[in-house]
Amino acid sequence: MSDSFAHWMAAIRLRTESALDRRLPASATAPARLHEAMRYSTLGGGKRMRPLLCHAAGAALAADARALDAAACALELIHAYSLVHDDLPCMDDDMLRRGRPTCHVEFDQATALLVGDALQALAFQALAEAAAPSCQRRLAMIALLAQAAGARGMVGGQAIDLAAVGATLTLEELEFMHIRKTGALIRAAVLLGAHCGEADDAALVALGHYASRAGLLFQIVDDILDAEGSTITLGKTAGKDAARNKPTYVSMLGLSRARELAATLRAQAQEALCACAFDTTRLARLTDYIADRTF
Amino acid sequence: MSDSFAHWMAAIRLRTESALDRRLPASATAPARLHEAMRYSTLGGGKRMRPLLCHAAGAALAADARALDAAACALELIHAYSLVHDDLPCMDDDMLRRGRPTCHVEFDQATALLVGDALQALAFQALAEAAAPSCQRRLAMIALLAQAAGARGMVGGQAIDLAAVGATLTLEELEFMHIRKTGALIRAAVLLGAHCGEADDAALVALGHYASRAGLLFQIVDDILDAEGSTITLGKTAGKDAARNKPTYVSMLGLSRARELAATLRAQAQEALCACAFDTTRLARLTDYIADRTF
Repeated sequence: MSDSFAHWMAAIRLRTESALDRRLPASATAPARLHEAMRYSTLGGGKRMRPLLCHAAGAALAADARALDAAACALELIHAYSLVHDDLPCMDDDMLRRGRPTCHVEFDQATALLVGDALQALAFQALAEAAAPSCQRRLAMIALLAQAAGARGMVGGQAIDLAAVGATLTLEELEFMHIRKTGALIRAAVLLGAHCGEADDAALVALGHYASRAGLLFQIVDDILDAEGSTITLGKTAGKDAARNKPTYVSMLGLSRARELAATLRAQAQEALCACAFDTTRLARLTDYIADRTF
Repeated sequence: MSDSFAHWMAAIRLRTESALDRRLPASATAPARLHEAMRYSTLGGGKRMRPLLCHAAGAALAADARALDAAACALELIHAYSLVHDDLPCMDDDMLRRGRPTCHVEFDQATALLVGDALQALAFQALAEAAAPSCQRRLAMIALLAQAAGARGMVGGQAIDLAAVGATLTLEELEFMHIRKTGALIRAAVLLGAHCGEADDAALVALGHYASRAGLLFQIVDDILDAEGSTITLGKTAGKDAARNKPTYVSMLGLSRARELAATLRAQAQEALCACAFDTTRLARLTDYIADRTF
């Protein structure tokens, strides 16, 4: 990774942390415990993959930085809420997240439930109150994020995931699930960035195609890391999908063919970027980062 | 209640049901169980108090009916999600809602969690995709609804409510909680209706004042009904606040003084309507309906 790209990633993570910090309610104001738990679950950790994708797409189209900060905030708030709810005992029942106790372990289940609910509302508020882009664009962004987060997107994918425990899926069914569960929000990250840059339809189509490949790549790498990684490196419980008898790319294809599929998706994602008439260097670098990451 | 007012209420309930039915995902499409549970939790019941308030405020300002339908949908989706999450075992642990098993009893806890999450996303999507009013107004409506639903509104009130179990509150603290827990969404209902009618600042201020009184009135009547009502009439478990040692207006003031406070709030709400320069007959009727309701 070049120094300047690493520097850019660090800068985006820093400004996203700062934007989230400003957007989240202060832990000194009532209800303090809720606010503290919201901050605990959102700040100080995470790869900030979605903000990085959003900024990379937006910067290529000369987007307003305030718009990108708002979009990055909204994406990360949705992502953080989904992790808090996903870790609850009635879902994945996980104790460890980003190397720390999960929200319901550190606080309690009721607080974790409310934290997720409040973070989701705050995500849409962040977009609605953003200083840019145009009103029309912001409405399109809100509709896009809501769809990506909802029953036809992320939450729908989680519902399919629940039903898949112990079941036998085809590769197509596994892909159908992941396109929703993780793919929808990754796609939204790229497209929100593009909207911030007032992207035209051709750019949205090309970036949408890129994002769908990058989203599946992200998931398959997650499956590979879960299968071969350690809990300490990942900062979350490793091997849990296999332990819960959940179908993954690795359980269905084996490690070797899963790695081959990852290589194919990586090539397809990079190819999709070639169709873009603007500088996609950062998106290309992020694709490599997604493919080569070890945590 | 006059025949024409009863007819209007029935018509608004019917068109809200129909708008929700169109907005919710079909139970035949995947993930079918999630979609079925979303429909189960939203359709076929409820007083539709928030849609009624929204339509009453909007019709007084000659609002576009499609805008009001979208706003009514959004309000009812937020309300329905909050009930589903509120009924979960880690919250109020309730088995009965609108005379039927609660969502997690009829389905399961994980599904109920996801149903609430998906309904909230759908609420913001409904506003973002509405055909009217102007883009600027719709963004203001989304920000308003998000704030009313979030940590500084409904969810914040629920967090205070959780912390209040077994605690001794002052009357001011009880009011602080209820202004958020139920008041914020009732206020949003009136103001979303007003925005649909392109209300000016003076109208928004007057209606905001009305709505804050009407919201507290709604809550105190709820407390009175919970204390003296039966489970069959209410369609939900009666007497549960007292059983859980939750502070209510009745537990703090006694029935007689709670009724006096309700009468005062009712008068203040009606008075606030006098400051409006448009026809507030329906809002006045709804205030009477809120005050006199027996379920």
